Amino acid sequence: MSLIVQKYGGSSVADAASVRRVARRIVETKHAGHDVVVVVSAMGDSTDELLDLANQVSPSPPGRELDMLLTAGERISMAVLAMAIHDLGEEGRSYTGSQAGLITDSAHGAARIIDVTPGRIRHALADGAIPIVAGFQGVSYDSKDVTTLGRGGSDTTAVALAVALDADVCEIYTDVDGVFSADPRVVPAARQVPLIAHQEMLELAAAGAKVLHLRCVEYARRSHMPIHVRSSFSDRQGTWVVDLAQPLPDIVPISGGTVEQPIIAGVAHDLNDCKITVVGVPDRPGEAALIFTAVADAGVNVDMIVQNVSLEETGLTDVTFTCPVAERQHALDALAAVQEGIGFAGLRSDDGIAKISLVGAGMRSNPGVSATFFRALADAGINISMISTSEIRISVVTSKDAAGDAVRAVHTAFGLDADGEAVVYGGTGR
Amino acid sequence: MSLIVQKYGGSSVADAASVRRVARRIVETKHAGHDVVVVVSAMGDSTDELLDLANQVSPSPPGRELDMLLTAGERISMAVLAMAIHDLGEEGRSYTGSQAGLITDSAHGAARIIDVTPGRIRHALADGAIPIVAGFQGVSYDSKDVTTLGRGGSDTTAVALAVALDADVCEIYTDVDGVFSADPRVVPAARQVPLIAHQEMLELAAAGAKVLHLRCVEYARRSHMPIHVRSSFSDRQGTWVVDLAQPLPDIVPISGGTVEQPIIAGVAHDLNDCKITVVGVPDRPGEAALIFTAVADAGVNVDMIVQNVSLEETGLTDVTFTCPVAERQHALDALAAVQEGIGFAGLRSDDGIAKISLVGAGMRSNPGVSATFFRALADAGINISMISTSEIRISVVTSKDAAGDAVRAVHTAFGLDADGEAVVYGGTGR
Repeated sequence: MSLIVQKYGGSSVADAASVRRVARRIVETKHAGHDVVVVVSAMGDSTDELLDLANQVSPSPPGRELDMLLTAGERISMAVLAMAIHDLGEEGRSYTGSQAGLITDSAHGAARIIDVTPGRIRHALADGAIPIVAGFQGVSYDSKDVTTLGRGGSDTTAVALAVALDADVCEIYTDVDGVFSADPRVVPAARQVPLIAHQEMLELAAAGAKVLHLRCVEYARRSHMPIHVRSSFSDRQGTWVVDLAQPLPDIVPISGGTVEQPIIAGVAHDLNDCKITVVGVPDRPGEAALIFTAVADAGVNVDMIVQNVSLEETGLTDVTFTCPVAERQHALDALAAVQEGIGFAGLRSDDGIAKISLVGAGMRSNPGVSATFFRALADAGINISMISTSEIRISVVTSKDAAGDAVRAVHTAFGLDADGEAVVYGGTGR
Repeated sequence: MSLIVQKYGGSSVADAASVRRVARRIVETKHAGHDVVVVVSAMGDSTDELLDLANQVSPSPPGRELDMLLTAGERISMAVLAMAIHDLGEEGRSYTGSQAGLITDSAHGAARIIDVTPGRIRHALADGAIPIVAGFQGVSYDSKDVTTLGRGGSDTTAVALAVALDADVCEIYTDVDGVFSADPRVVPAARQVPLIAHQEMLELAAAGAKVLHLRCVEYARRSHMPIHVRSSFSDRQGTWVVDLAQPLPDIVPISGGTVEQPIIAGVAHDLNDCKITVVGVPDRPGEAALIFTAVADAGVNVDMIVQNVSLEETGLTDVTFTCPVAERQHALDALAAVQEGIGFAGLRSDDGIAKISLVGAGMRSNPGVSATFFRALADAGINISMISTSEIRISVVTSKDAAGDAVRAVHTAFGLDADGEAVVYGGTGR
């Protein structure tokens, strides 16, 4: 018998029929002999509808009240899911984030979990019931007010509960079959990835892969919690996100001795960044610090940075960085405010960019990876304007128009296409 | 400065525009120098929509989960109302029933309030904020689960909070101008009642007047809490429901020395009862007890009862009672199950009845009231099939067809018509 935390997203519980389907899956899991704890998001688009209502009433609603409003969404979905489970002869018991012990700080709309005390959930399990916990929400330790966790919040609730309850796995149900080697809408030959390391998943999520949110993967990585990302519309095995530095836990139905992990986990792309260039910056020590302090103070998340070599005759250089398009205006405003002090010549910005990232733990020990990557892009005639790397990731910026060709070229070059042959380690047998 | 509890029903907060209108009224009350605590129902028809959703998922949802679901309704309305207040420059802070200290028993769907501990509400008032409390809901003392109070629950929440906070008045906002001497749809000449005793209001509510629920009036009567029933669509004074045995509190803008209280407060009618006759009951001691034990065990609320004088030659009698139409089948089933044991001949039932009630504290000391009442009905040619009385109420059962004529005849006979002259006390000056 295992303890399984299952998280169902809004698209899995969009209407009464979906709720009943999900209830059947939950009850089947229990009947297979497992303890089940469920985390559920708001039904379908209901969170957006609540936001619309708030905007009709106030242009800038206070965070405390917005959180109170939005948490009504999971309250509804968890109660009807409990009802549907009851209808199948098992006892579903719904719990708000507060009742389930999700203790957070007071940052309304983007609260951080600071403790999980799931005493009532343990009691429900001991009673033979199936606890249904509202995702995305908690209660502030200081003010006792209701909080929400922000984007990716329900996934994070599920992982946090799984860790606190010492569950065997956290299953994240979604509307796709798991993690793919690239976005299947861009690369039809993309294949589903059966097994991936937390660290790789983290890099893929940071690089634009949508299936799991950065924050929940980070939480799982710290606690070595296996995540199983799978479809709520089929019984197929999805993608196991695990700690590959340790022996696979028994619950992972992949034989440890026979797995060869590919060098490359996947190719991600992100179309939501823009590029800002600070033109004619005096090439003196500390100028970059002034620029990025101004940008950071405006709450802008800077991703890649490059600085050109300055021309000796002018003593000026250009500094280019990328950030989310949604934060572009904040960045430009913040920089314009310090232009006189820093003494740069001007600002340019470009929305027409894409970031293409190659992720794989195996590239650490395979020096040829970056050469293959750049060769593939060059052969496809794709121009690169920025480059950044981490230990297990290479990212480049291209024009938005070239993004699809770039992803497909790289995907093919590394043998990731479903009809090709993936590049694998030499059988280390872990 | 007074402490005022204001309760707004679903029709007063049906959409964003109504919510903003209500917010303005609340802020005006605060700006007039008062402390305000608000109790709010779910927006418009949203409770019915949540019930529909529950029925789509399960034919018999468990009470705990139904309460969890339905309490989402007030969560939404209270949060958006707090936002609208924030938009007007005051701080609205929403509180669930649990947060506001509404402690109940565990009877899901019909919970009774067993304690009110509004510590957080007092703190919010001390902070200068306007607390917005979800009506209709509480938290179980035993299980810590969320409960709902059932029909009339939000009015009861408001009165209970007003009592616990020692408020000066509980204002119940609705879509009419207060309590009328009869239903204006039936009696166009009905007039608004400016002042009425708790006990009279209790009898009117029990007799079918819809404007206030029996339960909240009973709660207010026990604690001598003044209720001001008024329209959220106008600034007119509504109806003050007060303890007329004591001096009027200062907040009531009616001069105690000049008020003459009419003998009759109003005429109510109820079309939702039916009449059941148990035919041919052996006239032995204890038969009535057997009949009404069976009916009570089926959860049926019996209202009026009459027993005919038995004919000496047969030794049989008929027992007739009224109960809500919705409970008729339960009553008939329960009686059919005991027919053999009791030995009665059969059952008859009739939905085509109306109950007409005359209510007024003054009838205690005016022996002519019942004569005037029956004379008015006789003159209008209306047949009476049952009669019951309390100290301050006379009720009769007529045919449903005759209900309108009966109410109008009685209303006119007691001088209640707006162009007539009401029968008043002889100026006791209270």
